[in-house]
Amino acid sequence: MSKQRWAKRKGTIAERDLIHLFWANEWSAHRIAGSGSSQYPSPDVIAGNGARKLAIESKITSSNKKYFPEEEIEGLKEFCSIFGAESWIAIQFSKSDNKNWFFFSLEDLNKSGKSYNIDFKDCEMKGLLFEELIK
Amino acid sequence: MSKQRWAKRKGTIAERDLIHLFWANEWSAHRIAGSGSSQYPSPDVIAGNGARKLAIESKITSSNKKYFPEEEIEGLKEFCSIFGAESWIAIQFSKSDNKNWFFFSLEDLNKSGKSYNIDFKDCEMKGLLFEELIK
Repeated sequence: MSKQRWAKRKGTIAERDLIHLFWANEWSAHRIAGSGSSQYPSPDVIAGNGARKLAIESKITSSNKKYFPEEEIEGLKEFCSIFGAESWIAIQFSKSDNKNWFFFSLEDLNKSGKSYNIDFKDCEMKGLLFEELIK
Repeated sequence: MSKQRWAKRKGTIAERDLIHLFWANEWSAHRIAGSGSSQYPSPDVIAGNGARKLAIESKITSSNKKYFPEEEIEGLKEFCSIFGAESWIAIQFSKSDNKNWFFFSLEDLNKSGKSYNIDFKDCEMKGLLFEELIK
């Protein structure tokens, strides 16, 4: 399997894991078809519990830092403003001992030039755990 | 291409057409990944405009009558009650001269035994056109 295909596969597995987490906590969640290739702004995952709707870009990375192109973040913002949802970034740092998902609002992203990023070091200070996200 | 695969293909093309319709009218809409095969209740399409969220089973049929297994309708209801969305059935009768989408609420479905159905004849009396749905 090519490196790119493997990365995509790992991403899909991680998204499914996130989706199980929501359903196990009485939320609904689904992956959006063709997210990333759609001509329309699209999150990876949409979750809802009646009162709240979350649109999520979910990433798994083996690095210490995850970069987000500006257009990905702008797309998420645009989708959320039309659909009516909160925008969230979910990251799993696969190299760390801590395999938790960390959730970041867009204000928590670091800006550098034309892209945004989240550093593993940001998790403790700014990242929400799943239980905190759905509280 | 097998008959089954071709039917699925036609369904996907029809769903895309429906999605374009929403975006052209300042709504957001996306197909749900793995709808139909997901272990969780799932609509085919989710659409939103800030104020309203619609969960849609979208079907294209070359018959005069479209049947829905009870579990499909129950699944749609369940998703809607957890996520917080209106439940809708969208149907295109491909044999008719009228290639419009018609939208039905679950109360408009005819029940017969363990399944539900919509007859082409129901369109005029009970079906909403897209413009009426989003009004």
